[in-house]
Amino acid sequence: MSCSVLFLSRQPRMAAATGDPGLSKLQFAPFSSALDVGFWHELTQKKLNEYRLDEAPKDIKGYYYNGDSAGLPARLTLEFSAFDMSAPTPARCCPALGTLYNTNTLESFKTADKKLLLEQTANKIWESIKSGAALEDPVLLNKFLLLTFADLKKYHFYYWFCYPALCLPESIPLIQGPVSLDQRFSPKQIEALKRAYDDLCQREGVTALPYFLIKYDENTVQVSLLKHYSDFFQGQRTKMTVGVYDPCNLAQYPGWPLRNLLVLAAHRWSSSFRSVEVLCFRDRTMQGLRDVAHSIIFEVKLPEMAFSPDCPKAVGWEKNQKGGMGPRMVNVSGCMDPKRLAESSVDLNLKLMCWRLAPTLDLDKVVSAKCLLLGAGTLGCNVARTLMGWGVRHITFVDNAKISYSNPVRQPLYEFEDCLGSGKPKALAAADRLQKIFPGVNARGYNMSIPMPGHPVDFSSVTLEQARSDVEQLEQLVGSHDVVFLLMDTRESRWLPTVIAASKRKLVINAALGFDTFVVMRHGLKRPKQQGAGDLCPSHPGGPADLLGSSLFANIPGYKLGCYFCNDVVAPGDSTRDRTLDQQCTVSRPGLAMLAGALAVELMVSVLQHPEGGYAIASSSDDRMNEPPTSLGLVPHQDLLCKRGC
Amino acid sequence: MSCSVLFLSRQPRMAAATGDPGLSKLQFAPFSSALDVGFWHELTQKKLNEYRLDEAPKDIKGYYYNGDSAGLPARLTLEFSAFDMSAPTPARCCPALGTLYNTNTLESFKTADKKLLLEQTANKIWESIKSGAALEDPVLLNKFLLLTFADLKKYHFYYWFCYPALCLPESIPLIQGPVSLDQRFSPKQIEALKRAYDDLCQREGVTALPYFLIKYDENTVQVSLLKHYSDFFQGQRTKMTVGVYDPCNLAQYPGWPLRNLLVLAAHRWSSSFRSVEVLCFRDRTMQGLRDVAHSIIFEVKLPEMAFSPDCPKAVGWEKNQKGGMGPRMVNVSGCMDPKRLAESSVDLNLKLMCWRLAPTLDLDKVVSAKCLLLGAGTLGCNVARTLMGWGVRHITFVDNAKISYSNPVRQPLYEFEDCLGSGKPKALAAADRLQKIFPGVNARGYNMSIPMPGHPVDFSSVTLEQARSDVEQLEQLVGSHDVVFLLMDTRESRWLPTVIAASKRKLVINAALGFDTFVVMRHGLKRPKQQGAGDLCPSHPGGPADLLGSSLFANIPGYKLGCYFCNDVVAPGDSTRDRTLDQQCTVSRPGLAMLAGALAVELMVSVLQHPEGGYAIASSSDDRMNEPPTSLGLVPHQDLLCKRGC
Repeated sequence: MSCSVLFLSRQPRMAAATGDPGLSKLQFAPFSSALDVGFWHELTQKKLNEYRLDEAPKDIKGYYYNGDSAGLPARLTLEFSAFDMSAPTPARCCPALGTLYNTNTLESFKTADKKLLLEQTANKIWESIKSGAALEDPVLLNKFLLLTFADLKKYHFYYWFCYPALCLPESIPLIQGPVSLDQRFSPKQIEALKRAYDDLCQREGVTALPYFLIKYDENTVQVSLLKHYSDFFQGQRTKMTVGVYDPCNLAQYPGWPLRNLLVLAAHRWSSSFRSVEVLCFRDRTMQGLRDVAHSIIFEVKLPEMAFSPDCPKAVGWEKNQKGGMGPRMVNVSGCMDPKRLAESSVDLNLKLMCWRLAPTLDLDKVVSAKCLLLGAGTLGCNVARTLMGWGVRHITFVDNAKISYSNPVRQPLYEFEDCLGSGKPKALAAADRLQKIFPGVNARGYNMSIPMPGHPVDFSSVTLEQARSDVEQLEQLVGSHDVVFLLMDTRESRWLPTVIAASKRKLVINAALGFDTFVVMRHGLKRPKQQGAGDLCPSHPGGPADLLGSSLFANIPGYKLGCYFCNDVVAPGDSTRDRTLDQQCTVSRPGLAMLAGALAVELMVSVLQHPEGGYAIASSSDDRMNEPPTSLGLVPHQDLLCKRGC
Repeated sequence: MSCSVLFLSRQPRMAAATGDPGLSKLQFAPFSSALDVGFWHELTQKKLNEYRLDEAPKDIKGYYYNGDSAGLPARLTLEFSAFDMSAPTPARCCPALGTLYNTNTLESFKTADKKLLLEQTANKIWESIKSGAALEDPVLLNKFLLLTFADLKKYHFYYWFCYPALCLPESIPLIQGPVSLDQRFSPKQIEALKRAYDDLCQREGVTALPYFLIKYDENTVQVSLLKHYSDFFQGQRTKMTVGVYDPCNLAQYPGWPLRNLLVLAAHRWSSSFRSVEVLCFRDRTMQGLRDVAHSIIFEVKLPEMAFSPDCPKAVGWEKNQKGGMGPRMVNVSGCMDPKRLAESSVDLNLKLMCWRLAPTLDLDKVVSAKCLLLGAGTLGCNVARTLMGWGVRHITFVDNAKISYSNPVRQPLYEFEDCLGSGKPKALAAADRLQKIFPGVNARGYNMSIPMPGHPVDFSSVTLEQARSDVEQLEQLVGSHDVVFLLMDTRESRWLPTVIAASKRKLVINAALGFDTFVVMRHGLKRPKQQGAGDLCPSHPGGPADLLGSSLFANIPGYKLGCYFCNDVVAPGDSTRDRTLDQQCTVSRPGLAMLAGALAVELMVSVLQHPEGGYAIASSSDDRMNEPPTSLGLVPHQDLLCKRGC
């Protein structure tokens, strides 16, 4: 909270009520708004997740303290708890109820009708005075307004604070004082006041009383709630004393909260009393000793306004740092830990999608998905980049290759330096790069091979042990992730992960490139075992066969969808033997891996958004007349592109 | 060439001909193949650009030297000039003609029929001996084979070298010697030999004579070409002396080239002579003095084979480093400058496209395109990445923003560190990153604003001067590039570059994102002025209007295509005012920028491949029955995607 001092205005000038040149006029020290970093942080969260585009006024809560040492301005503090109306008020602080007007654009912030906003609140205060509600609950006199615009991209907050004070029709002449309480009260009286105030607070169960009534003589001091004024002052017609919990430190001036109390007093009691004595109760602890002796006391003439029906004029918009009437801006980004700032900023872009474009988008399902990327080449790098864009925090790479000189221009997680020597292992370098891009990611790399059909293991040597441990490691990895991406450069390396993922019922997204063609598909998902349903290849070719009798146009449920190997007529084998250089997968139009990588992730996101997840019926553009099944549109079985032909 | 020693075999074992145990048998020192880095580099270029998938045998040329100091093995050297049959042979070197068998795969390298290859070459040598061609041109006796597989991705070269030697039916008994020439010849004779040899070389215009005839007495030495043997030895029946240009250094053994000469001698002259004297001519310069005295001389019995019609058995495959019969492998990558290696590797991936998949692809048109990227955000970064993949070397960024914390996860040229402080300027950071990815790129960044309609310039201040200079800078940049990419985040910022590029007739590729939609389009290209043709908007809305009368299905030529502003009903203005956070462009499905960025570059490449470039008729998938107009397929006007709907 060391930043909060940033948002304090300088020592304010006094606000004087005008009129009656005979006597000294009472002047008031206005509030300075003290908006804590925690407040802005919480506003950010509310705006992002709850308010979104809603510009309706919101109830918020602030408080003020009256125990500051001399020199500090009277502050109305708003912190992270401001949005929780049931949050407790800190000890020895007085609550103030506010209204937040948070605009969607800087333009509406600037053009907001501040006069109208002030009048509306002043009216409410006036109504509570007239109706007597303010007597019952004096907190109603402590209202404030906060007009804001939050530029969440830059962590710039524009704001204008207003603490409405109703104005008496004329200025308030000082009859006596102000003097320090210890100049008027004996130590005994002071002690009695303190005790009486504490007892009343305790009885009422409040941390502080903003306004109260006082009766005293040489030996005793009594205090009471405003609403008991007739009983409390019964028979007493000579003198009325009111206490105000005063956030101001200045010896000659009371703070702002007194203003509305004086209006209430004038309205209620000016017919009975010509003047009122005011005790500005100030209550500090210095060097372990509690002290209220520096409170001030004075007497003012009460204007007559008992029968005025109209709301008096009101003032209260805070001046800005330059002393003029205008809004303030605070840049919170400098106060934030850069890594934390990066996390919030990434969240922001995602959450903005939910405001209007895809309000039902369930981001948690995406962000929390643990993704296993088998292959950290052109596809792996592009898939990882897109996952990062979607806010996915848990990304694991598996690859057994090292970075070669031709990689960086096509594999967007590597740089020239990574190729030096014999090249860094791709899986490890990719994980490192993700951390460099976004420190909040949990990225790991496994530099290992995936056992493949057609690539026999030498059973007489240690390679058998290695292959066994590779299979175990792969099983463990598939088991500990939610989505498995097949992004390798051979067909046969996709086989074992396909089988393992099918047996563990993990969502598999498969992407494969040609020269100017690619396929991006989700594998069908076996039904949960307890349902005892039909199986799905590759573990069991029975699945797709079920479809033979059904219409081609029937929607196929996720558990009947095939996998990458379902339509193959040959078993996977060694596809790398006897291939010329240009028959290897990297001979591909350079843009293709980006297309396929991006579509693979978008497909995953769409599937995760579907209420049935991987069991979602495969939808296609033939279904485009139907309502899209998710907030992100269709959930097809596959995305195909032939760049040459279409 | 300091690397050439890498490819030398160790000192070879002697090869002995077998038979006749009475006398010492002549043994020969085989060649070691010396394949220079330059040879492998040139092979890489030939394979990439010329041979591609062609496995037909290729003529190549090597040479050997006979002036080495003692201890070096006899070497047959192949360097970068080996592929140029008309390249001059280095001074005092003897040429050898070879055949290169470069296979497409490691498997065909391994399974090549080495016995057959050797027999074929041996047969040619034998035919040249029988026909007399070898007498006319003794270089025909110096043939070699080179079987290779070039793994151009790793710069690993597998090779097996063969210098075929025909075998005599029996071993060759030594009658006399070998002794050093200065033990047999007087200094005067040695001097005379040297002079006679030099004179003959000069008359023949060759750097060295592989084989020659010698006649000598106490005072004179004469040399002559093989083809003149009958005149040269006319009347002489007692003794025949032949000279061989001998790459071997050993005092007791001749080098390999003698073998085929002895077969020729046996075939031609064994009916006339029972023995032949051999002078292994060795010719070195030590401490500035030329010396041939260390040549060796000896006499051998000539086997009788005058009437044998069949090709003798042949030997000659080189042993590998382990001394066994097997191929060798050399990893050239360690010898190369890493930056150069990166450039070659990037080229490789591109050139492989031309081998089979798109043989008519004109890569130069793409690689040499100077690209100006207006905007270095999500689109700019992805476009730059795809351009790098296509080998584009000249990329310039323009942007006026700084990198913020939300950028790196979506803008693939930035990292977390770039955001610290107030963030690096995007244009400069993007250019720096390209250099880090690929040092061979020529990337620049301009941190500047683009003047926009709807964003008025304050005419009374320095901002006017700034705006003027921005316009000038932009005009200069558009003028000095070939393709302009519009990748900004507002509509109005695209206006001025559109107008400037239209007036300069530059190809414009425009990409713009929505939440789940995007557009990628090429702007129409004004006809060259000299043709006096119709104009094109935005400078002249007459262009597209011409189409009103024509069929919708007519193919529209490039000069009639519209631009981004053609179909708009409102003029560009300030679109950033009064926008809520989620109405700003970055609220987009994260995969979309990759899709649009990749398609924008692919569109540019397709347009550049079209013979008419930007004037190409806009083709669409309706034309898919027609022959695609470029090796990369259609050249549409735009690529659209609505991810929600299709």
